[in-house]
Amino acid sequence: MELPSNTLANAVEHLSTLPGVGKRSALRFALHLLKQPADETLHLADSIHRLTTDIHYCHICHCLSDTDTCPICSSPKRNQSIVCVVENVQDVMAIENTQQYQGLYHVLGGVISPIDGIGIRDLNIDSLIQRVQQGIPSPVDEVILALPTTMEGDTTSFYLNKQLLPLGVRITTIARGIAIGDNLEYADEITLGRSIINRIPFA
Amino acid sequence: MELPSNTLANAVEHLSTLPGVGKRSALRFALHLLKQPADETLHLADSIHRLTTDIHYCHICHCLSDTDTCPICSSPKRNQSIVCVVENVQDVMAIENTQQYQGLYHVLGGVISPIDGIGIRDLNIDSLIQRVQQGIPSPVDEVILALPTTMEGDTTSFYLNKQLLPLGVRITTIARGIAIGDNLEYADEITLGRSIINRIPFA
Repeated sequence: MELPSNTLANAVEHLSTLPGVGKRSALRFALHLLKQPADETLHLADSIHRLTTDIHYCHICHCLSDTDTCPICSSPKRNQSIVCVVENVQDVMAIENTQQYQGLYHVLGGVISPIDGIGIRDLNIDSLIQRVQQGIPSPVDEVILALPTTMEGDTTSFYLNKQLLPLGVRITTIARGIAIGDNLEYADEITLGRSIINRIPFA
Repeated sequence: MELPSNTLANAVEHLSTLPGVGKRSALRFALHLLKQPADETLHLADSIHRLTTDIHYCHICHCLSDTDTCPICSSPKRNQSIVCVVENVQDVMAIENTQQYQGLYHVLGGVISPIDGIGIRDLNIDSLIQRVQQGIPSPVDEVILALPTTMEGDTTSFYLNKQLLPLGVRITTIARGIAIGDNLEYADEITLGRSIINRIPFA
């Protein structure tokens, strides 16, 4: 589509790099930004600009943070002896939303995936081993592996288990099974099969 | 959802003001912007910022432009005696894409809509009358009304027709009918009915 202005074309091109946004949506965004009061558009530009300057990553758990140590790692209310290993920041947010977990996190920043060129060195694995070895920020009793149940996630879990076992820490993983409210007849066979094998005492 | 960083929360809040973008998509956008190289994120912020500073509107046709007079109004190749009246900039782009129209445009910036508080004074109607009266940029022989066939669009067309008629200009409107490739049985009754009334000679 021929655009009547290079400035608009430039904005559309950059907006269409957002995930799931095509040229048409990008044009809709750009025309909306043109129509609304200029200071709201400037606020958006500024908030995006600040993502590159004001965001830090916690030096302990590698989660996004406004400070060098994130609020979770620096909170005296959290149980610092439990570390939950997750793939990314979204997983931290999902678990935090449940309000069921009071321990700390460790964000790997991905999972081992040779096909995507992601190896052990690209992930925050060394710092996890260090945390357990040296007790950063406190001695660690338990590591919960909460990685995805894909081939890559499982590979990463196996690798972490192998590395952490000699350190004498308890290693657990989150329960998998039929989601609460789901019907058995619509559940996939692997999940249903495992949920029977890993059954737990009724109350 | 609780976000681990105020900078991130701020970006998500502003991104979610884009049309059709909710909190979840905005978060996906923001995390994508964090993950990609910082200079690409800065380019996006800059291109949005420039929408507020570098965009002009053509003083003749009110279309978006990088200059005071848009490339269409200043082109010697266009037929300056025909003016096509459209609701907004997207309509100009849609007609330009057909490569079937060689005249000029006039962007109203909306249609008369009392329910949305849009009256005659809010639209570029006076400047259209002036263009026809004074021949800006050249004498106008024909005005094509290409407004939507909604109640608001029709009201605007009727009003413009009433204003332009005394000026002795030819007033036309775009053909409405069954879209090329469409089946008659699935066409709506009003369109099909009008397409029979407004039938044209076969070749």
